[in-house]
Amino acid sequence: MNQQSIAQSLFTVTATNRQYDEAIEHKINQKTKPLGALGQLESLALQIARVQYSRESEWVNAQSERTESTVTELPLYINKPTMLVFAADHGIAAHGVSIAPSEVTTQMVHNFIHGGAAINVFCRQVGFTLEVIDCGILQPLASDCGVVNQRLGAGTQAMHLQPAMLLAQVRQGFEFAKQLVKRHVDNGCSMIALGEMGIGNTSAAAAVMAAVLNLDVELCVGRGTGIDDATLNKKVTLINQAIDLHRNELTSIESILAHLGGFEIVQMTGAILAAAEQKILVVIDGFIATAAALVALKLAPQSNDYLVFAHQSHEQGHQLMLQTLQATPLLSLGLRLGEGTGAALALPLIQGAVNFYNQMASFDDAGVNNVV
Amino acid sequence: MNQQSIAQSLFTVTATNRQYDEAIEHKINQKTKPLGALGQLESLALQIARVQYSRESEWVNAQSERTESTVTELPLYINKPTMLVFAADHGIAAHGVSIAPSEVTTQMVHNFIHGGAAINVFCRQVGFTLEVIDCGILQPLASDCGVVNQRLGAGTQAMHLQPAMLLAQVRQGFEFAKQLVKRHVDNGCSMIALGEMGIGNTSAAAAVMAAVLNLDVELCVGRGTGIDDATLNKKVTLINQAIDLHRNELTSIESILAHLGGFEIVQMTGAILAAAEQKILVVIDGFIATAAALVALKLAPQSNDYLVFAHQSHEQGHQLMLQTLQATPLLSLGLRLGEGTGAALALPLIQGAVNFYNQMASFDDAGVNNVV
Repeated sequence: MNQQSIAQSLFTVTATNRQYDEAIEHKINQKTKPLGALGQLESLALQIARVQYSRESEWVNAQSERTESTVTELPLYINKPTMLVFAADHGIAAHGVSIAPSEVTTQMVHNFIHGGAAINVFCRQVGFTLEVIDCGILQPLASDCGVVNQRLGAGTQAMHLQPAMLLAQVRQGFEFAKQLVKRHVDNGCSMIALGEMGIGNTSAAAAVMAAVLNLDVELCVGRGTGIDDATLNKKVTLINQAIDLHRNELTSIESILAHLGGFEIVQMTGAILAAAEQKILVVIDGFIATAAALVALKLAPQSNDYLVFAHQSHEQGHQLMLQTLQATPLLSLGLRLGEGTGAALALPLIQGAVNFYNQMASFDDAGVNNVV
Repeated sequence: MNQQSIAQSLFTVTATNRQYDEAIEHKINQKTKPLGALGQLESLALQIARVQYSRESEWVNAQSERTESTVTELPLYINKPTMLVFAADHGIAAHGVSIAPSEVTTQMVHNFIHGGAAINVFCRQVGFTLEVIDCGILQPLASDCGVVNQRLGAGTQAMHLQPAMLLAQVRQGFEFAKQLVKRHVDNGCSMIALGEMGIGNTSAAAAVMAAVLNLDVELCVGRGTGIDDATLNKKVTLINQAIDLHRNELTSIESILAHLGGFEIVQMTGAILAAAEQKILVVIDGFIATAAALVALKLAPQSNDYLVFAHQSHEQGHQLMLQTLQATPLLSLGLRLGEGTGAALALPLIQGAVNFYNQMASFDDAGVNNVV
């Protein structure tokens, strides 16, 4: 089995079309504002236009009367934005790396179901549809509870003692994610965001990061939701033990994911690849989702065109990954909650980029001197 | 006339009530999240609760059955959020300190009236009511155009040649602002935000900043909306000339405002003092609004309890002022447009702080282990 066989067999990711860049930039520069004065919202509007004009390109090309200069008349849009929260448990959590026991994963999933968590509050506020996916928490939920069943097991194995999962589970996770994203896109969704819940998942994400980037574990590990020094040392020790144990098997990205990853990290990686394949935007938030993005970009670098980074946390590992990915998140609010909360809070900024592009008057429209 | 006579005669600003802090923090810490995991939104919720429980305190105290532990059952709120955009012209603009002529101020006011500017787009999106105030642009507008007439003149005088305005105009500007804010509060508004439009107003704001903080002009001046080196040098030279010319008169904050300020800066300062007097939140965005906040805080330091800083720009002068004020803005998107755009984009974050406080389940409510 060659290095990228699973992802390559399941996903065809292509870069966005850049042929309209000049027209897009001209449209942005003719808005009634000084050149570049909307900062990051301008580069975001360019990115969204590239993505959406790539999706429309077959249709655009079919219109014989449509030229490059009129393509930019097509409004940008955010249709049915969907927050996918992936929940899973981790074998390593039973070995003292977290402030909370694995039972809290299930308790928080019930909190999601009843609408009481931070992610519920923010999704309701900004207009995200929230969908929770059971990727493999300790116990199955009732089938009518509203959570999507994409279980890969009852939590991963403790990675410092054995592989977290098998390659077959990685494949199954990618397939689940592909189906999930396709269902939403077929239903009209033009943007997904990724959130997660899983006690112990910062350990899995840090292990994957350290192995993929070949970094010291100390650089990749943070305090998660607030562990003390002793727990932090334990976390570093166990992750190092896991990497040592599996060293000879960490020969491909997908094998790293199998030996050190988590069921939610696998499915988030699959969701990123699926969103890129479908040419829709995918909003990345937090340490776990960024680790999934790192993996996805190693498997299919063109995925980068579809990624919007929502939030820069204070965790050193997160900052290091974002630097490696040359990503500039939209927010930096000191959040360290996960669940996709940063991605939810970023939606109004993404909508702002779409709206100024669609709605602002040009210098000509408004009779304002073009001072640029 | 003593140093602070005008502001002291017009505004009575008192600090917020801190007596409920413990109860507020307890409520935030019992939400289903790790301790402090909502970062800046938590300190913002605390601030909003202090402000609003101070407003309610007479009412709260009147309820004999209401104790400290139940005060926090009062939901926080954002009622009728109102974006006040103050427009004015500046005599110095005719002397080569800006990329645009003063006529652009009026052109942009017409763009606001017709709904085509960035601030219109963002206010519509997030739910701000937009009100534009003519504080003294070059020519009066038609009386039925929808812009509030609070004119202090037809642009200020060129400050490097004579005082920008008289102290009587400062007083009139404060009185206008007080009436304006009172009208909105009487109408149920619980939060205002400040925006501005005025070709040349970064020169006035930089001059005020340099004089108030006794700093070298070079540290206070930036490129505004994008001037070149020659224009930047001209800007520094003229501001230094203005400060030298009026040096003996810059003996009080209000005299600095008269000699170096602008009609919109005066009215924004008054609006901050009026909002603080009325105990409502006031959202501060950008270099000009921050200069007005600096002045307001010198006149009434307790105003600080009511200020929410929206956006950190890349302008060195802005960063320096924010540091001086120990302010940590919510956003840093590289905006340099003014108009209040950063404040508009910050509203969903402020709403997020209100919503998590009101709506999130506690550990007890949700049956989640309290792991903190």
